[in-house]
Amino acid sequence: MIKVGILGATGYTGLELLRVLARHPGAQVAWLTSEGSAGQRFGDVFPAPLPQSDMKLIPSAQADASATDLVFACLPHGASQDAVAAACQAGARVVDLSADYRLHDPAAYQAWYDHAHSQTALLAEAVYGLPELHRSRICDAGLVANPGCYATSIILGLAPLARVGWLGGTVIADSKSGVSGAGRQPTQKTHFVEANENLSPYSIGRSHRHLPEIEQELAELMTKPEGGHEGQGTPDADAAPSFTLIFSPHLVPVNRGIVSTIYVELPAGIMEQQVLALYRAMYLAEPFVRLLPAGQVATMAHAVGSNSCAIGLTLVPGTRTLIVTSSLDNLIKGASGQAVQNMNLMFGLGESTGLA
Amino acid sequence: MIKVGILGATGYTGLELLRVLARHPGAQVAWLTSEGSAGQRFGDVFPAPLPQSDMKLIPSAQADASATDLVFACLPHGASQDAVAAACQAGARVVDLSADYRLHDPAAYQAWYDHAHSQTALLAEAVYGLPELHRSRICDAGLVANPGCYATSIILGLAPLARVGWLGGTVIADSKSGVSGAGRQPTQKTHFVEANENLSPYSIGRSHRHLPEIEQELAELMTKPEGGHEGQGTPDADAAPSFTLIFSPHLVPVNRGIVSTIYVELPAGIMEQQVLALYRAMYLAEPFVRLLPAGQVATMAHAVGSNSCAIGLTLVPGTRTLIVTSSLDNLIKGASGQAVQNMNLMFGLGESTGLA
Amino acid sequence: MIKVGILGATGYTGLELLRVLARHPGAQVAWLTSEGSAGQRFGDVFPAPLPQSDMKLIPSAQADASATDLVFACLPHGASQDAVAAACQAGARVVDLSADYRLHDPAAYQAWYDHAHSQTALLAEAVYGLPELHRSRICDAGLVANPGCYATSIILGLAPLARVGWLGGTVIADSKSGVSGAGRQPTQKTHFVEANENLSPYSIGRSHRHLPEIEQELAELMTKPEGGHEGQGTPDADAAPSFTLIFSPHLVPVNRGIVSTIYVELPAGIMEQQVLALYRAMYLAEPFVRLLPAGQVATMAHAVGSNSCAIGLTLVPGTRTLIVTSSLDNLIKGASGQAVQNMNLMFGLGESTGLA
Amino acid sequence: MIKVGILGATGYTGLELLRVLARHPGAQVAWLTSEGSAGQRFGDVFPAPLPQSDMKLIPSAQADASATDLVFACLPHGASQDAVAAACQAGARVVDLSADYRLHDPAAYQAWYDHAHSQTALLAEAVYGLPELHRSRICDAGLVANPGCYATSIILGLAPLARVGWLGGTVIADSKSGVSGAGRQPTQKTHFVEANENLSPYSIGRSHRHLPEIEQELAELMTKPEGGHEGQGTPDADAAPSFTLIFSPHLVPVNRGIVSTIYVELPAGIMEQQVLALYRAMYLAEPFVRLLPAGQVATMAHAVGSNSCAIGLTLVPGTRTLIVTSSLDNLIKGASGQAVQNMNLMFGLGESTGLA
Repeated sequence: MIKVGILGATGYTGLELLRVLARHPGAQVAWLTSEGSAGQRFGDVFPAPLPQSDMKLIPSAQADASATDLVFACLPHGASQDAVAAACQAGARVVDLSADYRLHDPAAYQAWYDHAHSQTALLAEAVYGLPELHRSRICDAGLVANPGCYATSIILGLAPLARVGWLGGTVIADSKSGVSGAGRQPTQKTHFVEANENLSPYSIGRSHRHLPEIEQELAELMTKPEGGHEGQGTPDADAAPSFTLIFSPHLVPVNRGIVSTIYVELPAGIMEQQVLALYRAMYLAEPFVRLLPAGQVATMAHAVGSNSCAIGLTLVPGTRTLIVTSSLDNLIKGASGQAVQNMNLMFGLGESTGLA
Repeated sequence: MIKVGILGATGYTGLELLRVLARHPGAQVAWLTSEGSAGQRFGDVFPAPLPQSDMKLIPSAQADASATDLVFACLPHGASQDAVAAACQAGARVVDLSADYRLHDPAAYQAWYDHAHSQTALLAEAVYGLPELHRSRICDAGLVANPGCYATSIILGLAPLARVGWLGGTVIADSKSGVSGAGRQPTQKTHFVEANENLSPYSIGRSHRHLPEIEQELAELMTKPEGGHEGQGTPDADAAPSFTLIFSPHLVPVNRGIVSTIYVELPAGIMEQQVLALYRAMYLAEPFVRLLPAGQVATMAHAVGSNSCAIGLTLVPGTRTLIVTSSLDNLIKGASGQAVQNMNLMFGLGESTGLA
Repeated sequence: MIKVGILGATGYTGLELLRVLARHPGAQVAWLTSEGSAGQRFGDVFPAPLPQSDMKLIPSAQADASATDLVFACLPHGASQDAVAAACQAGARVVDLSADYRLHDPAAYQAWYDHAHSQTALLAEAVYGLPELHRSRICDAGLVANPGCYATSIILGLAPLARVGWLGGTVIADSKSGVSGAGRQPTQKTHFVEANENLSPYSIGRSHRHLPEIEQELAELMTKPEGGHEGQGTPDADAAPSFTLIFSPHLVPVNRGIVSTIYVELPAGIMEQQVLALYRAMYLAEPFVRLLPAGQVATMAHAVGSNSCAIGLTLVPGTRTLIVTSSLDNLIKGASGQAVQNMNLMFGLGESTGLA
Repeated sequence: MIKVGILGATGYTGLELLRVLARHPGAQVAWLTSEGSAGQRFGDVFPAPLPQSDMKLIPSAQADASATDLVFACLPHGASQDAVAAACQAGARVVDLSADYRLHDPAAYQAWYDHAHSQTALLAEAVYGLPELHRSRICDAGLVANPGCYATSIILGLAPLARVGWLGGTVIADSKSGVSGAGRQPTQKTHFVEANENLSPYSIGRSHRHLPEIEQELAELMTKPEGGHEGQGTPDADAAPSFTLIFSPHLVPVNRGIVSTIYVELPAGIMEQQVLALYRAMYLAEPFVRLLPAGQVATMAHAVGSNSCAIGLTLVPGTRTLIVTSSLDNLIKGASGQAVQNMNLMFGLGESTGLA
């Protein structure tokens, strides 16, 4: 039985983690922390019925990482990096659901997150937690940086192309996400009346913080196509990605779900069947990538409620434009389900345990 | 041209007031106040296209009530009472959309709103702004207390019964409201993810603050059935209402709309046609009460987007239970539309001007 | 391993049954029928990822009930009765999710469903499948009539009162349901644009078809309070229920969930603590009834996604009115989850197997 | 007073037309047709309160076009072409809201709509009813083909670029639409439970029927930049558009609203201010195009409920990619509001009459 602790359990990723773990036969929750709701039962914060509803929330100062095998950190970025380091120091392995350990390059972190990274040594050890790319390294990792939700949908949607060098020019990822992706903190933008019956583009172009982790992973696949499973690191400058990613997130009035509609200009002369073969080769054995039949598109309904990423491929007739539709549940494959998938790998369990 | 000012324009009732006034041929907005957004354009706060989008929001300290004919106060209760008094003092007539001047009895106000009323003299002059009950007094009023949204749906649903003394025993009003009724301030309860795909009873029984204004108005109709159009005041103790109101609001995931499903035990021997005749007698000439054919129920779709209150009547066969379904748009007939209806009366315009 | 077949698998209860069974360790799906979609894969009908997505749908004429231990019938009422009889004849036990075997009295069935019951002998053997009332009889039943979704929420909300004779006068159940309760057949009423941003009362009073099963079960509890667990039958005329049920369903724009707000006039002199004690006595050991602390109300969020029925109790201060709020997921505890709960009982498994 | 008749009044565009006309001071509805609901009141079909709710629906065979000045045809494509021809023959001017008269080339019509056009002579006279492009020709037109909703958002979003020849390469329009755009006929896809909490790409690439009208209009602007206001016709083959349009519609769970996110690769060396200047030059005087300040994006909330098309421009720093966000209300500017705007032009009224 893996003993797990959850830092910052009262957000949506914490809640979803407990939902997933409630059905997991090999993990047991030792403690849940919350600064704002410390002293309350978990069930006082969320009405949903869960086996852990009676657990008391404790402040993180009282959480003993050394008594756990694994700590899930569900803290906001910035707040996570030191808490994660402390848990590692205490001897626990960690899956960090924040963005703090996703970018290998501390300078990139500082550029995108507006402050210096305080744990650069630990950062160098962290593994980007996308099992479809880094499975073997995750198995041995002390610290796994769980990918962003948008990033997961886009990287999985483009990885087979990146590996064979078919990404080029301007690649456009037009993504649509449910509101839980914006977190649980009430804001004007997430007020029911403002989000409902509305749809809003935001941070479009090259300004959203998931952009650099997408580029990092795709660049790595392009420069070391085999290395995706072996090594890792900032790609050499002269092997930098030869494409430009435009990434436009949109907020849509659903609780959960992401659809990324991705537009790629393929090299000349490629047929739809070749593209399908390429994706099939990479994903056939993947338990959580669901490749749709040719011509079908991935909708939210293909993925919501599951740990699957559904991928549809459409090569527009008479053009070289490939449209990849990639959908997932932002709280499951995009966060807590993937975190448990990583846990399963780290502790030698079947990768799908508790996730079917 | 009536010159109007709006205190607290950046909530949903303020926005809706501007929408209604945009189509009103006889009113012109002189100023809009906001403490939190002073200095911004109205269009910076709300993206919806409105003719007044370019008006600058000013702090209330800079708002000159003496330069207006009418002030709409869209402030929170408590904050409204002194601001309204100041506007009256400056010579403006006022329609107050808060709860501050609805209850005639200062002790009742204090009991329900947890602080003493600071303007009891002015309170004594205020007219409860439900045109269907107090039309002639509204015409001459200096200060009109615009009714609550739930209260409007329930009072209009029961007034014909109250006037003939058919209200008795336990009367149950089970009301369902869209989220805009909870205001624009972001809270956990109104966060999209918590309100969406959910439905929540709250303040059920006899604890919601709209209860006393409903009882006040119905009691007055019962004790002075004719007086509803002439006089007003706290009913005598010995003529107190002979029924008990149970009022249960529910939050539903729509932006706007209220349906109140009201259950009344009628005196023995009354036929559905008699009930219909009673309602028809009271509402036939009312421009904004829409009495449905026998057996039809009022849905939100019957009223949303309009200043109408739709009323359906169902006498359950084999019983004495009358079910009144009463629906309205909480932001129009339940707030800003009714405020303009009151304005029209106060300034001698056609009652429906700008509201059709 | 229980071998199960599903008649009429392509509606929402069929889909939900597969979702629940996908996590059930002791059941295996042998076949799925559909007349309209025969020949297609289940995954062609529903995009959601399920382990059974690749199963072919077969016409019911090809479904071999004799090769199964249990048949779930998810057919429309009327269509179900003969199909169920055939499955019983073939030696399978049956859980019927339609209304066809819920009413013990064939005359009542005919009155409410507009045609004669074709299987009155089998009807006499069927057990009403509410485990909280009929657990022991369900264990031995050949045919279980799975309760209606509204009925489950209301019967569980009132059963403790019925058993001690505290139901009297007019009892009002004001219920709000998500749209999946209306079935999967597209209609004008369930068109997204008509249901969204709307709320509609329908079949209010005493006209909805769940009314007679609610009255049947509560009457039985009142006349044979102990018998609820032992015997069953139409209550004697002279012991008929001494209350009148008014039941008003409302359609609300959510996919799933029911909240019933129920108003009961208690006998004089009863305190809230006594009511709580009564409910606690009946439900303390129930795995799927979740009694909330005093004063809390049941929202959809308390139950959706689980097999729980959440119950809140509020005795309105200064009155004898008890407000029971009862919520559940109409597709789980209101249909397919309860069907699996019944299966577990019928086959001697732990009652919560696959439902936690 | 313009006397208007409406063919096919019981769809969403018919309903919206009545809403708009209810506030229009210069038009009067003479008759409303419906084959399926003939004999009913309009108010029996739609519960919303409208001044025309008491009008009886008549079969089109009884509709006298010769007694009207203008006929709005709200029929399905295919069904519209002969009905429109008959109305023209009877002497009425016509605004056709279907797709039947939008494509100038009968062969293109046949290719996209799977049957030959039956009125090619009349087709040659029809004017594409986008006032921002064809205002003067609309004024004199006998038959105006009202544009598609998606088409309006995309053509307005790209027209300034087309006129100066800045459209080239692959242009991607990723559009998101509310469900009313799919019409009022109930289908599985528009069932509340399937559309709610979902988002679906459909007809992506180059397969949606709005594609050819978008290309026709943009090509015309490119080949005869000035001619957009003077002449019209199929562009010469050798002046065919030098760009490829990829158009991907998505269904989103809102009642109304479209956001098109459009990606264009600009010629080298163009600055954001130049783009803004270009759009400002074309749209400054347009009453219903709302150009947002630089860097702002158009959300549904910018346009829903109004006849405006809101346009935001973002030139992605460090790239040549311009992102145009274009939003409108698919039932107003995308259909019935634009139809009334066309009516105003055709009858010499102020273009904004009844639309503010």
